[in-house]
Amino acid sequence: MSEAATGLVRISLDAMGGDFGPSVVIPGAARAAERHPDARFVIFGKEAEINAELAKFPALRDKVKVTHAEIAISMEDKPSQALRAGRYKSSMWMAIDAVKKGDADVCVSAGNTGALMVMSRFCLKMMPGIDRPAIACMWPTAKGESIVLDVGASIGAEAENLVDMAIMGSAMARIVFDIDRPTVGLLNVGVEEMKGVEEVKEAARILRESNLPNMQYMGYVEGDDIGKGTTDVVVTEGFSGNIALKTAEGTAKQVADFLKAAISRSFMAKIGYVFARGAFKALKAKLDPRRSNGGVFLGLDGIVVKSHGGTDPLGFATAIDVAYDMVKYELLAKITKALAERGDWVLPGASSSMVEAAGDAGAAQPAKAPTNGTEG
Amino acid sequence: MSEAATGLVRISLDAMGGDFGPSVVIPGAARAAERHPDARFVIFGKEAEINAELAKFPALRDKVKVTHAEIAISMEDKPSQALRAGRYKSSMWMAIDAVKKGDADVCVSAGNTGALMVMSRFCLKMMPGIDRPAIACMWPTAKGESIVLDVGASIGAEAENLVDMAIMGSAMARIVFDIDRPTVGLLNVGVEEMKGVEEVKEAARILRESNLPNMQYMGYVEGDDIGKGTTDVVVTEGFSGNIALKTAEGTAKQVADFLKAAISRSFMAKIGYVFARGAFKALKAKLDPRRSNGGVFLGLDGIVVKSHGGTDPLGFATAIDVAYDMVKYELLAKITKALAERGDWVLPGASSSMVEAAGDAGAAQPAKAPTNGTEG
Repeated sequence: MSEAATGLVRISLDAMGGDFGPSVVIPGAARAAERHPDARFVIFGKEAEINAELAKFPALRDKVKVTHAEIAISMEDKPSQALRAGRYKSSMWMAIDAVKKGDADVCVSAGNTGALMVMSRFCLKMMPGIDRPAIACMWPTAKGESIVLDVGASIGAEAENLVDMAIMGSAMARIVFDIDRPTVGLLNVGVEEMKGVEEVKEAARILRESNLPNMQYMGYVEGDDIGKGTTDVVVTEGFSGNIALKTAEGTAKQVADFLKAAISRSFMAKIGYVFARGAFKALKAKLDPRRSNGGVFLGLDGIVVKSHGGTDPLGFATAIDVAYDMVKYELLAKITKALAERGDWVLPGASSSMVEAAGDAGAAQPAKAPTNGTEG
Repeated sequence: MSEAATGLVRISLDAMGGDFGPSVVIPGAARAAERHPDARFVIFGKEAEINAELAKFPALRDKVKVTHAEIAISMEDKPSQALRAGRYKSSMWMAIDAVKKGDADVCVSAGNTGALMVMSRFCLKMMPGIDRPAIACMWPTAKGESIVLDVGASIGAEAENLVDMAIMGSAMARIVFDIDRPTVGLLNVGVEEMKGVEEVKEAARILRESNLPNMQYMGYVEGDDIGKGTTDVVVTEGFSGNIALKTAEGTAKQVADFLKAAISRSFMAKIGYVFARGAFKALKAKLDPRRSNGGVFLGLDGIVVKSHGGTDPLGFATAIDVAYDMVKYELLAKITKALAERGDWVLPGASSSMVEAAGDAGAAQPAKAPTNGTEG
């Protein structure tokens, strides 16, 4: 964690990620740089394309360092293909590796999620004390925003993993919402006494009984509680989390499309639209996925932020904002501290994490060549 | 299945289910009866309350038979409590039991889902060849409607259970959409090569290779495909299905509420609303949960339809419509036939169902006293 040393926030960018590569990444960086004068960028990708874009943003010139990368991971590459073809020499790998090497404090990529997660895990390894990575996203709610995790890093979760996610998500919430004890809910289904969610029940017991200092555990929440903003943090395993996220995105789009179609079918409604333009604009802004762009990979020994692949410079700048905040307000240190506090609270039946923590810590020592690690 | 004998569709109603009991159930039945002259109702619950409501609908008089039930299951009762307190003597149990006894062809209740499922399973038992029940719901989409199952009967599913759901959901789709080979998708997450969804992958393989005659298996769908209407039937296990459903309901409400608030904040927008009223009305109708009310319990040896607990007579009538159609167009016979066809197609690695089918069939024989069964 060398950000403190320089006072700058150094962000590595995978310029080739996403549907539009440097033509979105560079203008996005330029926007973010205006908001954050202490941000610096180390950029990886096709040098010629990057420089052509950079020429349009002279204010960025002194704030970036460009390193050529031969290979660009495509949005269609399977994670294993991406790792085989792109390790060491792809812009994605190099951007992640900059964090590992200490040349950057955080990495942002709009590249494909599976490849980015596999490479991040392979390169950065897990944080000591954490078993599995999770992806946390910002979810627009009736009250503002909540953090939902995991939205697709891992499928299934043991109780211990869910507790870890509650801890990591709370650390992120303390930064994003600037509150001391964010509220946390475990996503569950409403029907009591159903079989098969033993992990969720056990996680609930641990969270309730351990009463951790940096969060308020509120109990179970259901699917409709997410949009209500019932809790600041919603924890679930990655399969249902991913389905919830995509279902919500789909539903919001469906409602908006239906409204648009209904209005365009009638002349009167079109007139109404003109009068109510402000309201429609507010709705559009509220539903704008660019405003909540930036999935944070949690649990790794380094921070990686995933931008939507199809976003524009405005959206990419939002993802950079998220990355900036995570460094500036010391996400990793907050998580590490919260994990240490958990140590005192670990209860019988939920004990394996400490052993694993010790094992992971050992694996992270430089004595073991990182290139021999084959996690995940 | 005795509906054919009389030519009538005999529907048993749990008059005490839901937030409003007979004051919604009876007017709902009256509405449904207007649409379906061949529908008859056997109604269970507090006789005095039911008769007071029935007095308002003289056209119903010749079409109903009321049986007093001492106990009403509350919306808060846990399934096990409900079963202990309400077996034999609650309106819910008696309404289900009417199907078992052959006094009704289908049961409709707005009572609590967990209790209704446990009682239904306990009373009706599983259909031969099916391991687990599923709840199928109608989901409004951009194209019209799709059937999504399981939205909360069982948590987790083996490959075989998912295949069964595809078969049962397709049978229901053939009735509801009046098409020969409905399209079927398996709900999954987008990231390839993730671990932990072996069951979904195996189900996909079976569905692909068996190429069943009554459905077109289309492959994986993601959360946002549900609202797009990508397939007629979407299959998933009950945890993620329930979360998807509630998340979508929550999101639709959130968007509508936001739009309402945005319009009410500005005088100009209110004027716009007046002009665009038709469009807003169309949106409201589209989002109206009463129009897609009625979750069908599949996999049981009898049909039970669950209405939303908080619905009004219009919504309850929709649930009765669903129940009516399932009987009229022979859901159970369609499922039984489709299961028999599957028999020929079962592949190595997916073979256990035939053994279980034989076991279940045995258990369903009258030689075994039904009251000794302790399923679930």
